[in-house]
Amino acid sequence: MPIYQAPLRDYQFILSELLNIYQQTDLKGFDEVDPELTDAILQGVADFTTDIMLPLNASGDLEGCKLEDGKVITPKGFKAAYQQYIDDGWATLTCDPEYGGQGLPEVIGTFATEMKTATNMAFAMYPGLTHGAYSAIHVHGSDKLKQKYLEKLVSGEWTGTMNLTESHAGTDLALLRTKAKPLADDTFAISGEKIFISSGDHDLAENIIHLVLAKLPDAPEGVKGISLFAVPKFMVNDDGSLGKENSLSATALEHKMGIHGNSTCVMLFDGAVGELVGAPHQGLKAMFTMMNQARLGVGIQGLGVSDIAYQNALVYAKDRVQGRALSGIKHADQAADPILVHGDVRRMLLSQKSFNEATRALMGQQALWLDTAERHSDPVKAKQASALAALFTPIVKGFVTDQGFKACVDAQQIYGGHGYINEWGMEQFVRDIRIAMLYEGTNGVQALDLVGRKLLSDKGATLSLWSDMVKQFIGEHSANDAMKPYIAGLMDAAADLEKATGFIAKSAATNPDMIGAASMPYMQLFGISALAWMWARIAATSLAAIEAGTDEQAFYQAKLNTASFYMKYWGCQTRSLRKQVEMSSANIAAFDDNDF
Amino acid sequence: MPIYQAPLRDYQFILSELLNIYQQTDLKGFDEVDPELTDAILQGVADFTTDIMLPLNASGDLEGCKLEDGKVITPKGFKAAYQQYIDDGWATLTCDPEYGGQGLPEVIGTFATEMKTATNMAFAMYPGLTHGAYSAIHVHGSDKLKQKYLEKLVSGEWTGTMNLTESHAGTDLALLRTKAKPLADDTFAISGEKIFISSGDHDLAENIIHLVLAKLPDAPEGVKGISLFAVPKFMVNDDGSLGKENSLSATALEHKMGIHGNSTCVMLFDGAVGELVGAPHQGLKAMFTMMNQARLGVGIQGLGVSDIAYQNALVYAKDRVQGRALSGIKHADQAADPILVHGDVRRMLLSQKSFNEATRALMGQQALWLDTAERHSDPVKAKQASALAALFTPIVKGFVTDQGFKACVDAQQIYGGHGYINEWGMEQFVRDIRIAMLYEGTNGVQALDLVGRKLLSDKGATLSLWSDMVKQFIGEHSANDAMKPYIAGLMDAAADLEKATGFIAKSAATNPDMIGAASMPYMQLFGISALAWMWARIAATSLAAIEAGTDEQAFYQAKLNTASFYMKYWGCQTRSLRKQVEMSSANIAAFDDNDF
Repeated sequence: MPIYQAPLRDYQFILSELLNIYQQTDLKGFDEVDPELTDAILQGVADFTTDIMLPLNASGDLEGCKLEDGKVITPKGFKAAYQQYIDDGWATLTCDPEYGGQGLPEVIGTFATEMKTATNMAFAMYPGLTHGAYSAIHVHGSDKLKQKYLEKLVSGEWTGTMNLTESHAGTDLALLRTKAKPLADDTFAISGEKIFISSGDHDLAENIIHLVLAKLPDAPEGVKGISLFAVPKFMVNDDGSLGKENSLSATALEHKMGIHGNSTCVMLFDGAVGELVGAPHQGLKAMFTMMNQARLGVGIQGLGVSDIAYQNALVYAKDRVQGRALSGIKHADQAADPILVHGDVRRMLLSQKSFNEATRALMGQQALWLDTAERHSDPVKAKQASALAALFTPIVKGFVTDQGFKACVDAQQIYGGHGYINEWGMEQFVRDIRIAMLYEGTNGVQALDLVGRKLLSDKGATLSLWSDMVKQFIGEHSANDAMKPYIAGLMDAAADLEKATGFIAKSAATNPDMIGAASMPYMQLFGISALAWMWARIAATSLAAIEAGTDEQAFYQAKLNTASFYMKYWGCQTRSLRKQVEMSSANIAAFDDNDF
Repeated sequence: MPIYQAPLRDYQFILSELLNIYQQTDLKGFDEVDPELTDAILQGVADFTTDIMLPLNASGDLEGCKLEDGKVITPKGFKAAYQQYIDDGWATLTCDPEYGGQGLPEVIGTFATEMKTATNMAFAMYPGLTHGAYSAIHVHGSDKLKQKYLEKLVSGEWTGTMNLTESHAGTDLALLRTKAKPLADDTFAISGEKIFISSGDHDLAENIIHLVLAKLPDAPEGVKGISLFAVPKFMVNDDGSLGKENSLSATALEHKMGIHGNSTCVMLFDGAVGELVGAPHQGLKAMFTMMNQARLGVGIQGLGVSDIAYQNALVYAKDRVQGRALSGIKHADQAADPILVHGDVRRMLLSQKSFNEATRALMGQQALWLDTAERHSDPVKAKQASALAALFTPIVKGFVTDQGFKACVDAQQIYGGHGYINEWGMEQFVRDIRIAMLYEGTNGVQALDLVGRKLLSDKGATLSLWSDMVKQFIGEHSANDAMKPYIAGLMDAAADLEKATGFIAKSAATNPDMIGAASMPYMQLFGISALAWMWARIAATSLAAIEAGTDEQAFYQAKLNTASFYMKYWGCQTRSLRKQVEMSSANIAAFDDNDF
């Protein structure tokens, strides 16, 4: 069975050394957080995820969910584990104290989420979706709705779902057909079929609050005519007790490649009673305000599963003896050398490791921007952070899940034939994480969002915010000889990104179709550059610690060596990605449909 | 359910226009083949695979194989389909006429195999393994063994397996423990456990001939002490009738990520009676002589599954309407535009298409080299072809299955969320083809074989054979203006490959460990260059056909447009791969073990 070591030292490094969260005096509530509290929380989550969630990962995959008499039964052990999860209070970390939450920053919640998705992605999705429903009601719901639902969603006694997709309407929500008919008492009768509903029904909680997109009778055409409704599985009486069952049901479980432990349902709403969340016809807007957070959550899945896959591949590479090093026998006492001696095994492990560690730092940065947007005392700073978080959202979701998937495939590869066998657990990681490239907006949609919406809509203003930060960093460190290789790597990547950006800005107006054709290599180029920025910052922090005479020399030196690998190995991809951006117009957008 | 259109026009193009197989007068037996015969055979295989094998692909995956009372039961429909397969004579195509085969060239058999693996990879493996056992006995077996087994293996009445791997001995066969004890009558008692045995037991045929690697009592240490044995499931009497059951059994079915329709078994040999194939201690050599063919077979899986995935993704991209083109509404009559209008969908489809078509041509070239090695009247030409086939074997296996897997992941991506759902069939393609990167030597082993064995062992002599062909082609076409873009693309790739080769040749002697670290990017660089060679040749052939006034203008123009895309999109990856080769020594091979 796969092992897991929560990367607690890395969390400390990112939180207190790289991002300095304990010095963020302008962020409301950050003063209540100190290293001891953070360590205690992250250690607690590490214990829970490793001891309780991880042992249910393989069995949950094998057993899957069952639909019996219209009710979904989760795999053995999930119910007890979930009960412990809410009893221990892990559901409440980043929620509003007014409703029983602990009010912790996202930057801490993000790392808790990483450990949950690493150890059991399917299980982690139950509280994950609940948090989405909590946020929707918290930000957009009426006081009445908040009083009715939030406390139970925060505690985890009730769970939540997001009902967006219909069979003919996935990316294009303008096409959706679910109807909302006004009833006498300010409620609505919701009718329609939704597919791909994660955690749609289950036996973990006594009630489920479905957030459902539907159209009112007077709705304008298209996406401006979509409203959001809260539709409970069981009606909730005024005293908070549960009433009669609502007219909705899970009619089928989707048969999926992975995340078998999560109940992905087809949901039928048959005049189910619900209440508006936010204003009529503003449902999509309400969804979009939660999107930066939701997409960060999916990106964290990419990181979490990639990291546990790496950890196990490394253990296997040290344990498995097979063949001899090309330079001669390394372990004469064994029948063969551990496969870690083989260059291609090392190459795959280093690619994973250098991706994971920088991505973890980037996730921390992104979460800190989200925190800053919400908590900074200066509204200008808050707005800038919000724009930066929006710019990086497609990177954090699209780039990270693409590369996280590849990292899992490489980790599986290190196991040789055993990687293909269920019992070793590696093939499950690949099957599970594959969905992260598809849901919450496919990665193609992420790339288009990056180029079409984030880059071109404000004429590069937000991008400049970030590239100015990069330039400032380069300026501050370029005189330091020890920083030279990292600064050089960062500058190379940034130069390719700048050229590619310029090309798109110039071509997009006259040839809009090229935007889509160029968007994916552009997103990958942006992602690699963003991680180069993180590695350069990690290198600077590590060099400073070494200069200051740290007694953890090995920890920081490993960071520097990994940074060197990253700049060379990942860095040399940026030029070809830029070239792919530049060739997209003539050779992709203009390719004749009949020639496919 | 997925559709399949056998690429029959492409086969004609490759066989008669690109490779000119009907003008190969120096190849024994090629004179008996004409376009009519080839068309009839490939059309017959196309019909069988599309009508009989494809409908069993999803059901075979869902049902899987079962082990009951020590016997394996294949999925519903497999037995009847297999019976029709041998009744129709599809098992005999490329086999020796002396034993009932049709003696057809590999270059035709290769394309028959493509259609089989495309429509049902798990099913195709039963005859695939049989062909491997046939070849081993045909090349290395005594006359007595040949008389006993070959006719039934050729007809497909009996099937075969290859028993190499043990749980502790995969890549490193020197570690294997299975023993062969000499008995009185020139037979041997084989004892040991083998894992990952494809088609190890099943109900498709009345007998199974296992080819088993084991060690004789007096065996030298290591790979020079391994012998090969033919071990039947049922003993065969002198009159060819079946005798008593041998002491061997499938003790378990492996639980795998995919190819559920193939019975991958743990096999226990408990003093099972077998006969030597070839000389004592020469078993690995016997295995290696079949390896070029077996690895071509696995590469064809990469192509076949990639192609059916592409075909279905294209149908979906034309059918699925979602969103509007960035340049404005393209299909005002529909609620949305087909997703084929979106640049990133086009990019993925073009990447797949340009890979598949050139790979198909490369597979034809490789098969023709294998035919030439066996059939050419001039032993020098035969030897050169054999060396070229050996050089390209790791490309054809490792590069093609790596990229074929990626192509399947992209095809799945085009389906959005539906790509993750079993019923659409795309996720099965991804799960099935994943194994091709692992078995028959992992792709890391292929890359090491390319650099360590094929490149360095003859000091680049075989590589020069090929690069001279490339240079000659460039010389012949560089004056043709219409060929300029394709020649330029080929030259760019070839230049990067030459530099990378030079770097490895220079560094390998002083730093052997870098060979492993550099091998994977080198193999990818070689593969992209090889496909650039194929596209340049395809372009030249297509331009000639257009100049000659073909009435299939559209077919050839599509080839030219796809060639242009390939040169730009795939071509711009060669530089970064060369850079990855050059950085491997310091940053991978020398990376400290403790820093992982």
